[in-house]
Amino acid sequence: METRRPTNPDAEALLGLYFPVLDHGFVALVDYMGSDEDVERAARVSYGYGTRKTSQTRGLIRYLRRHRHTTPSEMVELKFHCSMPMFVARQWIRHRTASVNETSGRYSVLPLLFYAPCAGDVAVQSATNRQGRVPEPVDARVYAEAVERWERLRSLAGDTYAWLVERDVARELARIDLPLSTYTQWYWKIDLHNLLHFLSLRADAHAQWEIRAYARVMAGMLQRVAPLSFEAWRDYQLDGDRLSWGELEALRRLVRLDDGALAAGEGRVSDADLGGLGLSRREIDELRAKLAPAPPREDFTLDLAAAKPAAWFAERMEAAVPAVDRQP
Amino acid sequence: METRRPTNPDAEALLGLYFPVLDHGFVALVDYMGSDEDVERAARVSYGYGTRKTSQTRGLIRYLRRHRHTTPSEMVELKFHCSMPMFVARQWIRHRTASVNETSGRYSVLPLLFYAPCAGDVAVQSATNRQGRVPEPVDARVYAEAVERWERLRSLAGDTYAWLVERDVARELARIDLPLSTYTQWYWKIDLHNLLHFLSLRADAHAQWEIRAYARVMAGMLQRVAPLSFEAWRDYQLDGDRLSWGELEALRRLVRLDDGALAAGEGRVSDADLGGLGLSRREIDELRAKLAPAPPREDFTLDLAAAKPAAWFAERMEAAVPAVDRQP
Amino acid sequence: METRRPTNPDAEALLGLYFPVLDHGFVALVDYMGSDEDVERAARVSYGYGTRKTSQTRGLIRYLRRHRHTTPSEMVELKFHCSMPMFVARQWIRHRTASVNETSGRYSVLPLLFYAPCAGDVAVQSATNRQGRVPEPVDARVYAEAVERWERLRSLAGDTYAWLVERDVARELARIDLPLSTYTQWYWKIDLHNLLHFLSLRADAHAQWEIRAYARVMAGMLQRVAPLSFEAWRDYQLDGDRLSWGELEALRRLVRLDDGALAAGEGRVSDADLGGLGLSRREIDELRAKLAPAPPREDFTLDLAAAKPAAWFAERMEAAVPAVDRQP
Amino acid sequence: METRRPTNPDAEALLGLYFPVLDHGFVALVDYMGSDEDVERAARVSYGYGTRKTSQTRGLIRYLRRHRHTTPSEMVELKFHCSMPMFVARQWIRHRTASVNETSGRYSVLPLLFYAPCAGDVAVQSATNRQGRVPEPVDARVYAEAVERWERLRSLAGDTYAWLVERDVARELARIDLPLSTYTQWYWKIDLHNLLHFLSLRADAHAQWEIRAYARVMAGMLQRVAPLSFEAWRDYQLDGDRLSWGELEALRRLVRLDDGALAAGEGRVSDADLGGLGLSRREIDELRAKLAPAPPREDFTLDLAAAKPAAWFAERMEAAVPAVDRQP
Repeated sequence: METRRPTNPDAEALLGLYFPVLDHGFVALVDYMGSDEDVERAARVSYGYGTRKTSQTRGLIRYLRRHRHTTPSEMVELKFHCSMPMFVARQWIRHRTASVNETSGRYSVLPLLFYAPCAGDVAVQSATNRQGRVPEPVDARVYAEAVERWERLRSLAGDTYAWLVERDVARELARIDLPLSTYTQWYWKIDLHNLLHFLSLRADAHAQWEIRAYARVMAGMLQRVAPLSFEAWRDYQLDGDRLSWGELEALRRLVRLDDGALAAGEGRVSDADLGGLGLSRREIDELRAKLAPAPPREDFTLDLAAAKPAAWFAERMEAAVPAVDRQP
Repeated sequence: METRRPTNPDAEALLGLYFPVLDHGFVALVDYMGSDEDVERAARVSYGYGTRKTSQTRGLIRYLRRHRHTTPSEMVELKFHCSMPMFVARQWIRHRTASVNETSGRYSVLPLLFYAPCAGDVAVQSATNRQGRVPEPVDARVYAEAVERWERLRSLAGDTYAWLVERDVARELARIDLPLSTYTQWYWKIDLHNLLHFLSLRADAHAQWEIRAYARVMAGMLQRVAPLSFEAWRDYQLDGDRLSWGELEALRRLVRLDDGALAAGEGRVSDADLGGLGLSRREIDELRAKLAPAPPREDFTLDLAAAKPAAWFAERMEAAVPAVDRQP
Repeated sequence: METRRPTNPDAEALLGLYFPVLDHGFVALVDYMGSDEDVERAARVSYGYGTRKTSQTRGLIRYLRRHRHTTPSEMVELKFHCSMPMFVARQWIRHRTASVNETSGRYSVLPLLFYAPCAGDVAVQSATNRQGRVPEPVDARVYAEAVERWERLRSLAGDTYAWLVERDVARELARIDLPLSTYTQWYWKIDLHNLLHFLSLRADAHAQWEIRAYARVMAGMLQRVAPLSFEAWRDYQLDGDRLSWGELEALRRLVRLDDGALAAGEGRVSDADLGGLGLSRREIDELRAKLAPAPPREDFTLDLAAAKPAAWFAERMEAAVPAVDRQP
Repeated sequence: METRRPTNPDAEALLGLYFPVLDHGFVALVDYMGSDEDVERAARVSYGYGTRKTSQTRGLIRYLRRHRHTTPSEMVELKFHCSMPMFVARQWIRHRTASVNETSGRYSVLPLLFYAPCAGDVAVQSATNRQGRVPEPVDARVYAEAVERWERLRSLAGDTYAWLVERDVARELARIDLPLSTYTQWYWKIDLHNLLHFLSLRADAHAQWEIRAYARVMAGMLQRVAPLSFEAWRDYQLDGDRLSWGELEALRRLVRLDDGALAAGEGRVSDADLGGLGLSRREIDELRAKLAPAPPREDFTLDLAAAKPAAWFAERMEAAVPAVDRQP
């Protein structure tokens, strides 16, 4: 259709594409308002689109992000349609600055689709990241038995749900024993500033692997919708880091500011020195990790060919809804 | 302890009391900031507590609430500790204007406590309130079988969780097949304005019965913390109603404004007339319901004797955590 | 340009049009995301645009608004460019659920444009609406002297500002004695739900006349962007009213529910009876006002011919910026 | 008074103290909810105050802040009473996550108090921080003439306001030509997380000097209310800094990780190398500034003896309200 609104061909190409995530989930970009140019326009409170070069827009956007002038990035808005297991939804919903409309289990009969982790993704509790898991998967026998147990449980949960719905027990009660692995879906709308904050936390290595899978796809979408904002976020937030006063002091002792260059100084800052700057054992380890060689930077580029049409998912959802045949 | 902060004896009496809700849940008021006098003080931007009479404070608070001057009521803050089944938590968390800290299933091993509805609370889907249930319970045999099915399912879910935790499978994965009836807990902090909005929606007859049970206890707490604000909310919001332009027009035709009185007019407004004023069939039914005799007003007064100490719940929670005995 | 996003011809026709408000201000719709169909789509969490009839969409939207299911209307977003006097901006900014980018008086030299009320709009303090003014204008001599005083003051303020800027005094200081009548401008982005709340308060008779002038234009824009949501807002919020428990009880005594009609009862509810239902003198007066014949409903239809192009305002703004000729 | 709520003697000592800011303004802490222990308690979702040592609380609070687990710090709430010039209020109100009740110029006759900057604080526009001013004050003659002009303008503005109010012109109109230097006042309530964000931006060297004066006093109050959170904020946010991917890469080339120490490497990173890492000229200058010797850390400790009682300010405000002697 024709529009006089600002459009963006790379973003347009995403509309209508449903990207699979995990075994039954998806993320789709449903609508977008604005792009990098609209961030600039708001920052300048200008009267229209001028003759600025991309290099100037880039400079401004990087300056704004670097210096925490975040309000102009609120002027871009994105709307997604997503489906995810309920334990992922419960983490996601903690981000309160978005608008959400979720399928209602009180109103509708829910599709019986459950998330089953792959063998490579089931691992033991991590000792360092005390919320997460280690990188290596568990023993194959443990995985096999876990899958068997999960399947038995889900089969029983699905039967119970269907049995209750058949007896016309109120849906708000019938659903109370569905497992947290059950898929739900929602519309989710958020501005660019708050999306970047969401991605900083959820595309991070400390986030649960399953929600990271969603964040990565959304980062790839953002790369097309607002590429300069995406790049600045990657450089300053995702792949950058915050250094404390003590950490900066330590570095100031090690780096000399020569004319036209930074040079290694002569110093040496021992762990005891770092302690004297207020760093705990744990903070010293964190500083070393920040200065150790960084892993390769993540590539968020989306493969558009991986996407499906909306109907593909709609049909599968529909087919998973238990047939309701009310008992008199 | 001594404090120079504004205090309120009726609110103080609540601190430390854990009120049971449903079969394993609770609500406790942990802290409060301010009371009705602080709403007034903010509305007047005054320099301290003066010699105002309660009747003047009451008049101002009712005026503010009636005329949507809601910002002064943001100046009172309440902090709760609550435990509820996860399907209730998922409804509750939709209120985004609160602060929340929930037990983390990634970090902690969760207690295996599940909500089991009483016989009187299990009912079939309502045809009028299309999200809820009818008032009458289901047949006793259906209830009995439902309970049996639920118990089997929960037992299996608990075993599976314990089995996974014993093998040290990451907790963030072990928990994904716990049912939505599993209890969780959180700290929840909200200002008075937003609490009243929460209560308007969740103490309402259209809310799911289980979350209403929580809202009723919190309303009872509010009655002690800010009694004048509570009373105004009950009169104007909870037990009042909104009338549309068409509904008001209909009433204007039926009521005469005599000197010193309202009198019944001579008119008659047929359903066809109401249709002419823009009311649909459904809206006509809703108007009739608003004008039908109202049910008795709910009494939210708390029975302090029903409360338990924090330790009572803490012990039960603790006892329900599966013993972790890691297999090598 | 071509887009695959949902578009709306009546909204498209507004883009680029700057509607004058007050003597130098304006409101322009810069971008929009979604329309009534998107509210429905979110409420149903559906996979695309189907074959629904407008009458079904209308029924759903009215139902949602009537029953406070407000989250689907957060799925529509509007972006405005506005210019208003600073005392209006100070009222406007109290609505915290919007995104704002305002011209910075620290960075830019500000245009010297001031709001001058017309003779018909200057009136004495109201005794009933204790924040506002009476409908009748002041004596012509008072107005004439007020204008003369205002002009002297603004001329002096403009000279002082220009003098300071010429001496290169920091703009953040040069501007501190500009009057509150000075025009500023901003981008303002908000979702439909929060816009309706803004309009309910600012298109209301209790709002200051000057901000109402802005709210009226924005309501007219909304009438084109989401006409069914606009109509429901007008019927239920703007031209409807809230009745308290006591007010409803009084009406229940006066109205009989006949088969297929509402009929006047036999009763009479005296002011003493109303007092018995808990209504204060002031509340009794307010109830009488609600039941008195209503004034004609406001027509928000926009006259597109009244709009100017962006450049028209941009030129005037530019011309009002004091020429900076720095003194060495 | 007696309370069972968590109290904090260092915070209690602040209640009732009005700290002067600028020539007529103030900040007072009116109430507080919680302290560092409550942040910990929320993070652990625990049932009460245990026997934790301060060192453990400190470790947890620093960990939470370092790793962006910010929700527990939302569990502490502070309420302030403040008075500031309107141009400061306009910057302050941009922080939307607080609750505000401001004196209404529509309802009340306003005191005629205006902010007059000292000689040392009036300076020319900065070329580097393009929003602010240079450190050195302007020429004494420029300052003298500025003061004279400001005084003339304020005297005229005060007369005009009083003249209009005397003729009973609606206050909402009488006030429209008061200058932005006029003092206003409000109650302001915010949680600890959002207060720290406010302080990060407003206690920063890029903020306007006048609002920094307020932020400094509030930081001093926070130092008493939640000293461990304050310390972590100072170490990680205020006196720390964010480094981009390119900046970290540069440092990784200059620093060697020895056993038990950081050591200077052998490298040298030229400006051309930094350019190769994606840093612009401006970013290179910013990196050098981060590594240059840091200025002494700011001391926010409050001098309680500098505070006044509430009545001291209340009397001055009262005395500055123009006597209203309505002309018939």
